Amino acid sequence: MGELEGKGPLGNHFDRVLQDDLFNQKSWEKAENKMFQFAVKTAVEKSNMQMDDIDCLIGGDLLNQIISSSFAARELNIPFLGIYGACSTFSEALLLGGLLIDSKSMDCVVCAASTHFSTAERQYRTPLELGTGRPPTSQRTTTASGACVLKNAGTGPRLTHCTLGKVIDWGIKDANNMGAAMAPAAADTIATHLLETAKAPKDYDYIVTGDLGHHGSEVLIKLLKQRGFDVSSNHADCGIQIYPEDADVQSGGSGCGCSAVVFSAYFLKQLMDASVKNLLLVSTGALLSPTSTLQGESIPGIAHAVAFEACKEG
Amino acid sequence: MGELEGKGPLGNHFDRVLQDDLFNQKSWEKAENKMFQFAVKTAVEKSNMQMDDIDCLIGGDLLNQIISSSFAARELNIPFLGIYGACSTFSEALLLGGLLIDSKSMDCVVCAASTHFSTAERQYRTPLELGTGRPPTSQRTTTASGACVLKNAGTGPRLTHCTLGKVIDWGIKDANNMGAAMAPAAADTIATHLLETAKAPKDYDYIVTGDLGHHGSEVLIKLLKQRGFDVSSNHADCGIQIYPEDADVQSGGSGCGCSAVVFSAYFLKQLMDASVKNLLLVSTGALLSPTSTLQGESIPGIAHAVAFEACKEG
Repeated sequence: MGELEGKGPLGNHFDRVLQDDLFNQKSWEKAENKMFQFAVKTAVEKSNMQMDDIDCLIGGDLLNQIISSSFAARELNIPFLGIYGACSTFSEALLLGGLLIDSKSMDCVVCAASTHFSTAERQYRTPLELGTGRPPTSQRTTTASGACVLKNAGTGPRLTHCTLGKVIDWGIKDANNMGAAMAPAAADTIATHLLETAKAPKDYDYIVTGDLGHHGSEVLIKLLKQRGFDVSSNHADCGIQIYPEDADVQSGGSGCGCSAVVFSAYFLKQLMDASVKNLLLVSTGALLSPTSTLQGESIPGIAHAVAFEACKEG
Repeated sequence: MGELEGKGPLGNHFDRVLQDDLFNQKSWEKAENKMFQFAVKTAVEKSNMQMDDIDCLIGGDLLNQIISSSFAARELNIPFLGIYGACSTFSEALLLGGLLIDSKSMDCVVCAASTHFSTAERQYRTPLELGTGRPPTSQRTTTASGACVLKNAGTGPRLTHCTLGKVIDWGIKDANNMGAAMAPAAADTIATHLLETAKAPKDYDYIVTGDLGHHGSEVLIKLLKQRGFDVSSNHADCGIQIYPEDADVQSGGSGCGCSAVVFSAYFLKQLMDASVKNLLLVSTGALLSPTSTLQGESIPGIAHAVAFEACKEG
């Protein structure tokens, strides 16, 4: 985790908070690669497994050609499936991991996602040195790597359902308002999930979106209300939860590392001690690129949902 | 398919050969998006399905943030799993599709991959207008979109096995010699596959690598010989097969669209009429980025293997 994220309300849940966002490396990209490796190794150790026991790593990040994940996979020396779902990457990894275990061809999968404020800023936006101002709807890319091990047996929380998202685009073109661009996709996936599983929002202790931020979360709650679902009392958003309340992060956090750490370090623990009985994790992604933006395209969104339940009622 | 690819030995197998590589669009990126859509729609139609019957699209491409796939998925309006495996993307999509069907949660999946010479050149290399010369080990990114439908039932060829690859890096730093960078990964995946399935190379009519090109294929055959496997008589490479013999493409074709179309338009037909009894498709990816290259990193490779057999002996 980055230093600012470590100062947030979840700070004491994280396995490691960096004071130096270069992590003793020569570049932020190399630092992010090292963070990704650390997250995977820590998750595997904490699940009392050896790296050799892992059938595959499913992971991604926001850098072009997902180099944080690929170069980390080179060092980890286990079979690797690279994915890209922007900030929806972590729930995409979890749902793929769950389904691969369901296919009986794998017993144990590690799912990971990573982002770094400084690598993302210079790739997607402007050089940090410019000190460009940000509008209130913008979000800060989280410096965070998170990982989670899925097994075909054990006593931990269970992954029970997943719902794949469609790419949905309501025509928003403002890359500083990604929450609003992603909210329609999140609303669609959540509504589809609830209809397909014949559940009501209140059947979940939490419906946790990836990183819509404050503005996007408001849009989500309104859109779901229009479709007859009230999530206002049990909705949480990883992008809102991760930073200190007084941090200068505008609408909140973003980046696929955000939901990866908020789920893996915070909500998963609550599922483990059954203080949370069940939750729906819905990481949300904005599928834009600097190239598509320059070519006048709007911002498509996607969201995948993964349902977990505590193994035993608390 | 691009015009040059259409003039190659497989030209008459392709569903559509473009004379205009802009495909009536304003940019090459938008053209690649349209090609991707065309490939998916054609594959779905040819399998006598409707788009609504498809449980999900698994796909990727080489553009940053896989915008060709994501923006195509927006138009296709079906659940989407974005993946990134560089030129290994197509076999990654097939193996994921096969395993998701094995998990019983899906009945029908469409797998697709796409590349475009002009979008890749300007993203990865130099502006086309510079007319930069190329060394003999370099490969030409294929202008090609290919797609394939996997179903849980039917009379077509069967996907029987898959072997996930590890990221392997032997320290090659020359982005104009990607075949050699990918060959160790291909050799490792093929050897692992043969050992795990207790097969010999001759058990397959063809062992088809994604796009090692001439140089990379030579390296592969040598590396496998060192491990006791002789694939010299039944190895084929999509990157070698796709272009006319006299084309100015140095070591051959590359790009994840290459193995997608050579498999979907050529080898799949031979599996369908049982003129090929079985084959192992091994798409190979070079996981570099311009950023990692600038930061002095070498080129990691990855290769995933997917085995097919003709449904009935011919």
